[in-house]
Amino acid sequence: MKQIDVCLTPELLYQHKIDNSIVVVVDIFRATSCMVTGFAYGVQSIIPVASIEECVQLRDKGYYAAAERNGMTPEGFDLDNSPFSYMNEKFAGSTIAVTTTNGTLAITKSRAAVKVMIGSFLNLEALTQYLRNQQYDILVLCAGWKGKPNLEDTLFAGALVDRLQNEFMISEDAAMMAQRLYAGAKNDMLGFVANSSHVRRLHRLGIHKDISYCLQHDLYDVLPVLRGNQLVAM
Amino acid sequence: MKQIDVCLTPELLYQHKIDNSIVVVVDIFRATSCMVTGFAYGVQSIIPVASIEECVQLRDKGYYAAAERNGMTPEGFDLDNSPFSYMNEKFAGSTIAVTTTNGTLAITKSRAAVKVMIGSFLNLEALTQYLRNQQYDILVLCAGWKGKPNLEDTLFAGALVDRLQNEFMISEDAAMMAQRLYAGAKNDMLGFVANSSHVRRLHRLGIHKDISYCLQHDLYDVLPVLRGNQLVAM
Repeated sequence: MKQIDVCLTPELLYQHKIDNSIVVVVDIFRATSCMVTGFAYGVQSIIPVASIEECVQLRDKGYYAAAERNGMTPEGFDLDNSPFSYMNEKFAGSTIAVTTTNGTLAITKSRAAVKVMIGSFLNLEALTQYLRNQQYDILVLCAGWKGKPNLEDTLFAGALVDRLQNEFMISEDAAMMAQRLYAGAKNDMLGFVANSSHVRRLHRLGIHKDISYCLQHDLYDVLPVLRGNQLVAM
Repeated sequence: MKQIDVCLTPELLYQHKIDNSIVVVVDIFRATSCMVTGFAYGVQSIIPVASIEECVQLRDKGYYAAAERNGMTPEGFDLDNSPFSYMNEKFAGSTIAVTTTNGTLAITKSRAAVKVMIGSFLNLEALTQYLRNQQYDILVLCAGWKGKPNLEDTLFAGALVDRLQNEFMISEDAAMMAQRLYAGAKNDMLGFVANSSHVRRLHRLGIHKDISYCLQHDLYDVLPVLRGNQLVAM
């Protein structure tokens, strides 16, 4: 039977064989929530890059550019790391270069997979419907925070495990733990994550509405996938 | 304020500064449950070693020796990795050399800490009472399974976090996740871990009663601590 597993941080990715798996990368606050929002608003492609410098180079070539480090936007970029900054019709049909503290690193580390997809609560049901019929194993890769596991990415992993539990075997403890955490959280997501380290960081940065937005389920019928070095909507 | 944090696998220990912390090592199924049981039955000291070879060398020097690899006992050892094998009065006052798949490695990786202690549900309350009055931060180090996080060690971490939440700050998500998992599990520990990967492995090995035993809370007033290269009861 096909398996679904969860990797709680990119630091542990080496423990997983991914060359026969679809990897779903998640960075709820806020990289993958931003990407899904961008595609929902018509962005044509997103180029995830590891460094600020690469992002600047692509901006100088004429792409829109979005950057985030430690929850903040360095100067001179077109978008910040708020999903609301992606809700702008000037980006429709365009390409955006993106670098974030954790999210883009998780994507670049996953290139050996059959397919790399982008997950968020915003496109959870679209992902579920698509993955249900795939013949590959699934690994949910949590971007975490600077190499450590975090609550919100683990909750998303648990949500996806929960929705796919009839089609995929849950054989590893990380997947079970994520599923059980989500079961305890799903009726009050905002309350459950209120004390998480990242939400405290975001609150310090004054970004309350991003948090509520990123926890909303099933807003968009969007399936971002990595093609070459670009993310596009399937 | 003093902090309590959780490291879900020794592979992530490098992310934690432990030179001002007490590290509590946990390997519920079954290394640390065995050690606590041994001390409760009068064992004088336990020498954790990384390899089977070192364990054999100590046996040849006249120590009792216990070994486990992949849940099974190699031939020629005095004890296996069942806590019941430690309930033998011939070991009272003696020293036992122990090597296990995950537990002893976690102990040897923690030597930079102020103090390395051994945790299990069996001595949870004894640990709680002792740690409550300490001035150091606490890190619960889950031995996991071959580098991956596991359910039972995470549950123990959550139990200790829960009992110490008034005296220690919980600032990292791993500690929060462990605490919340434990909150959902504590009224039916056996049911909660029934599908975990390790319990399935142990069931295949026919070791049902070890599982129930290791999940019992607060049986022994025992505080094993690393002194030099030996564990002794404080």
